[in-house]
Amino acid sequence: MSRWLPAWLTGYRRGWLGGDVTAALVVTLLLVPQGLAYALLAGLPAQAGLYASVVPLVIYALTGKSHAQSVGPMAVTSLLTAATLARLAPAGPAEALALAAWLALLSGAMLVLLGALRFGFLADFLSAPVLAGFTSASALLIVLSQLVPLLGGHGGGSTLGTLLPALAHALATVKPVALAFGGGALAWLWLARRYLAVGLVCCGCSANLARLAARAAPVPVVLGVLLAVPALQLEHALPLVGPVPVGLPFPHWPGGLTRLPELVLPAFFIALVNYVQSLAVVQWLAIPRGEPVDPDRELVALGLSNVGTGLFGGLPVTGGLSRSVVNAEAGAQSQLASLLTAALMLAVMLWGGAALAVLPLSVLAATIVVAVAGMVDFAALRRAWRVDRADAAGFVATFAAVLLLGVDTGIVAGVLLSLGSFLARAGRPHIAELGRLPGREHFRNVRRFRVETQPQVLVLRVDESLFFANARRVEEALWQSLAERPDVRRLVLVMSAVNRIDATALAMLERFDAALTAQGIELVLAEVKWPVLAVLERGGLAAHFAGRLFLTTHEAWHAGRGGAGDYVI
Amino acid sequence: MSRWLPAWLTGYRRGWLGGDVTAALVVTLLLVPQGLAYALLAGLPAQAGLYASVVPLVIYALTGKSHAQSVGPMAVTSLLTAATLARLAPAGPAEALALAAWLALLSGAMLVLLGALRFGFLADFLSAPVLAGFTSASALLIVLSQLVPLLGGHGGGSTLGTLLPALAHALATVKPVALAFGGGALAWLWLARRYLAVGLVCCGCSANLARLAARAAPVPVVLGVLLAVPALQLEHALPLVGPVPVGLPFPHWPGGLTRLPELVLPAFFIALVNYVQSLAVVQWLAIPRGEPVDPDRELVALGLSNVGTGLFGGLPVTGGLSRSVVNAEAGAQSQLASLLTAALMLAVMLWGGAALAVLPLSVLAATIVVAVAGMVDFAALRRAWRVDRADAAGFVATFAAVLLLGVDTGIVAGVLLSLGSFLARAGRPHIAELGRLPGREHFRNVRRFRVETQPQVLVLRVDESLFFANARRVEEALWQSLAERPDVRRLVLVMSAVNRIDATALAMLERFDAALTAQGIELVLAEVKWPVLAVLERGGLAAHFAGRLFLTTHEAWHAGRGGAGDYVI
Repeated sequence: MSRWLPAWLTGYRRGWLGGDVTAALVVTLLLVPQGLAYALLAGLPAQAGLYASVVPLVIYALTGKSHAQSVGPMAVTSLLTAATLARLAPAGPAEALALAAWLALLSGAMLVLLGALRFGFLADFLSAPVLAGFTSASALLIVLSQLVPLLGGHGGGSTLGTLLPALAHALATVKPVALAFGGGALAWLWLARRYLAVGLVCCGCSANLARLAARAAPVPVVLGVLLAVPALQLEHALPLVGPVPVGLPFPHWPGGLTRLPELVLPAFFIALVNYVQSLAVVQWLAIPRGEPVDPDRELVALGLSNVGTGLFGGLPVTGGLSRSVVNAEAGAQSQLASLLTAALMLAVMLWGGAALAVLPLSVLAATIVVAVAGMVDFAALRRAWRVDRADAAGFVATFAAVLLLGVDTGIVAGVLLSLGSFLARAGRPHIAELGRLPGREHFRNVRRFRVETQPQVLVLRVDESLFFANARRVEEALWQSLAERPDVRRLVLVMSAVNRIDATALAMLERFDAALTAQGIELVLAEVKWPVLAVLERGGLAAHFAGRLFLTTHEAWHAGRGGAGDYVI
Repeated sequence: MSRWLPAWLTGYRRGWLGGDVTAALVVTLLLVPQGLAYALLAGLPAQAGLYASVVPLVIYALTGKSHAQSVGPMAVTSLLTAATLARLAPAGPAEALALAAWLALLSGAMLVLLGALRFGFLADFLSAPVLAGFTSASALLIVLSQLVPLLGGHGGGSTLGTLLPALAHALATVKPVALAFGGGALAWLWLARRYLAVGLVCCGCSANLARLAARAAPVPVVLGVLLAVPALQLEHALPLVGPVPVGLPFPHWPGGLTRLPELVLPAFFIALVNYVQSLAVVQWLAIPRGEPVDPDRELVALGLSNVGTGLFGGLPVTGGLSRSVVNAEAGAQSQLASLLTAALMLAVMLWGGAALAVLPLSVLAATIVVAVAGMVDFAALRRAWRVDRADAAGFVATFAAVLLLGVDTGIVAGVLLSLGSFLARAGRPHIAELGRLPGREHFRNVRRFRVETQPQVLVLRVDESLFFANARRVEEALWQSLAERPDVRRLVLVMSAVNRIDATALAMLERFDAALTAQGIELVLAEVKWPVLAVLERGGLAAHFAGRLFLTTHEAWHAGRGGAGDYVI
């Protein structure tokens, strides 16, 4: 029996309960406005965000391993959903809801499949700078999109091209009351983020409580305006969320099945981005506790959460850092916190729908702006620039592509660029001439170290695996080095950095050796790794190179005969 | 003045003339039927092949560097052209001709541009097995397509799906006279290829002349049927080439400009395949003469040749091995042979058009079948299989994709597969535990060699550059190795195979080091290469690792402190 229950439940300790209950209360109060806001950002009716906030929490609590992960609607995911919906141009809110639910279902099914196939490594193809560029540009787009409701306007979009006209229109038709509420909320949230924690610590609060209060700053804002709007009778003075028609969620297949083929590719990108975001949160939470992370397990848990939200009429969800951090800092000790949050959300949906109607859209916008502003991370660009220009180019290209071409095109451009730049470098390998460090058996680059060389022996180290994309160029470079050293009678190829060799490169090596022999130059190989030696053997070159394979560069450098025999244990 | 003339002209030697004239005669007699046949294969009127046989020869002779390269219509290029035309479904022969000319113009312009940008390395992305798979499947498709006219039928296609029905129809409606001519020609050509050279050598011929006679075997066949068909009054008994309306070629812009956007991608693939084929011929011709090959120069020469043929109403052209070999073996000593061939072709076009009308299509088909049959190269698959399973998979996937999806899709699939498999391997690097070879300062894999180890020191070598696609996996693998060795107090990372490191991997290394320090394990780096050290320094990690960077694994293995100071000259 207990085999089928999650480990946190069978091993639950009474001492965890207080923290879990507190965390559930705080997260619920944060999740209600965020759920509404992220649904609106995705271009959906507000209630979709509430539906998407219950089921994933329950599913992740039962299948996921992270104690404080909070799965639900998230900013970048909603922006990707908005971009997809804008392209598909649904006929009305009902079709938009159905398409969003299908996106969640499809991307969830893909995540489960990838997890089952142990494809968790897919996330690795998003390099850190590409991810930072993607997140920064997405956050910038989200901030721009939220300036429209902040000014009291309507509409917007998910690309710069659609956002700027909407923003211009909103600026021309500012609604002062909306701006007052939104601006006020923004100012409070900004000050709270900046100074509240420090202030509370000065007043004697514990550091942990102060940090939590600063992060939960949206809660009093939302509660305050929920009271203020009816009290001041401002229901008609500014755009509000309006009636949120929610009830108990029931599972059902979304409609709009015919457009499924158009959803496959966007669902894949949403799945990928959701997984990368969620995994980052899980790692961030696990490292300080020394817990191991199982990416494939996380894939499945996140996938099932998305399948669940799709069946219950929600939108794609993921684990987000902001809410998970609040959850952890509010004291969550186990997944029970998430289950309690789901129960509280259910209560809000059943009895709180009417009260939420008076929430001003500009205040919701202010909470989003503050939540995502910190995601614009130009420090990552500075770091990448210092380390590696190609990394910096990856950031800039992804950032620009997301802003100009859209979120989905942007992330594809970033991934392709980083892979392309890796391949381009592997295609033009660095080749170093080596010499012996005096008194040691160690050989290093003649241009970097004071080393000994011999006029008749040229020692070259190819700094890359040999494969089709660099075989011709390596051959050219070797000939060029030989042309500069006419006295050379022995060429030692140091293979310490050659991790693999393929058929194209093997043919090159054979051709090169024959041409060298014709010129009276002996080619010897040193420090050949086992997998490369195995290929030489299978390709029939090991016998060809018999007596010219040396274990160490030092032995190849001295006169004498080496042998493949050295390699046999 | 002489700066602007090709080197072969200013340095021409009288002794070369005999060979150049003979070669021109032989190649012309071979080029006439091949030009007609490859134009028909491309789905174009036969005369396009003659137009495409004059201009490129002249342009390459003036701009290219290879003495015996013969640029003109070629089998695989015609198949690619046929595939493109089939997809574009031109209204009639006139539109087909215009589209083919645009393909030549566009692909020529792309080649010139790639050459100017020094992008000759693009050819390297076609691995040898992928190229062999592509050529083999193309040759198989061409043989199948030629069986239709060989049986006296019409029509065909460029994919298995269109060829098989046409072949079935041709089999059901065999024209005996056509089959007799085609079958006879095929039998003679096959026997000539197989036994003629050996036979002539036995009869006292020189080996060179015998080889040439075997290769020029189509010449007597074509001359024979040109006499036999009118003599036997068979003009209405079998499908013939029919009137070939040719005159002096004049340059003109082809029509059909509106469909240009649809031609860009096919033109790129044609350019790439033509370049790879042509470069292989140039290298094959240059190596025995010890001449250097300049890929960028070849790109420009081939590009200009294609621009020329496009302007003169031809189809895309390239340098092909079969004709270039005949050219070289018939004695071509310089590009004058090609200029003379062009002049002879012009004479044929002006005065021979009527005589060509009685050439049976089945005989042309037989010459093509024999020319391409040798291109089916399953030995390449066997070689690839022995060396590397991924290489063999590249051959099989490309072969299957070309047969089933078409030539253009096939080559893209092959390239993507080989790049993907390289990336997948780089993403899962091999990590070896090293020990010291007794009595040497050299460290090798503990599982391959009898080596010494210390219980408190773990020496690991990561066999790959560290970058975003493998950083997480490497970190996991390092932790796993440490978990199996709880006594370890010092982890030596041997960086001899780490050629580059990026921002993602640098962040991993920093995180990993902090976690190790927290567990009381010292992380030291050995054999760090200069470019990696530079990244560590720029990323601020060099200071962090001060005293823990060792020049050699041997020094890192012993107790003591290393220093980045060692790296400074």
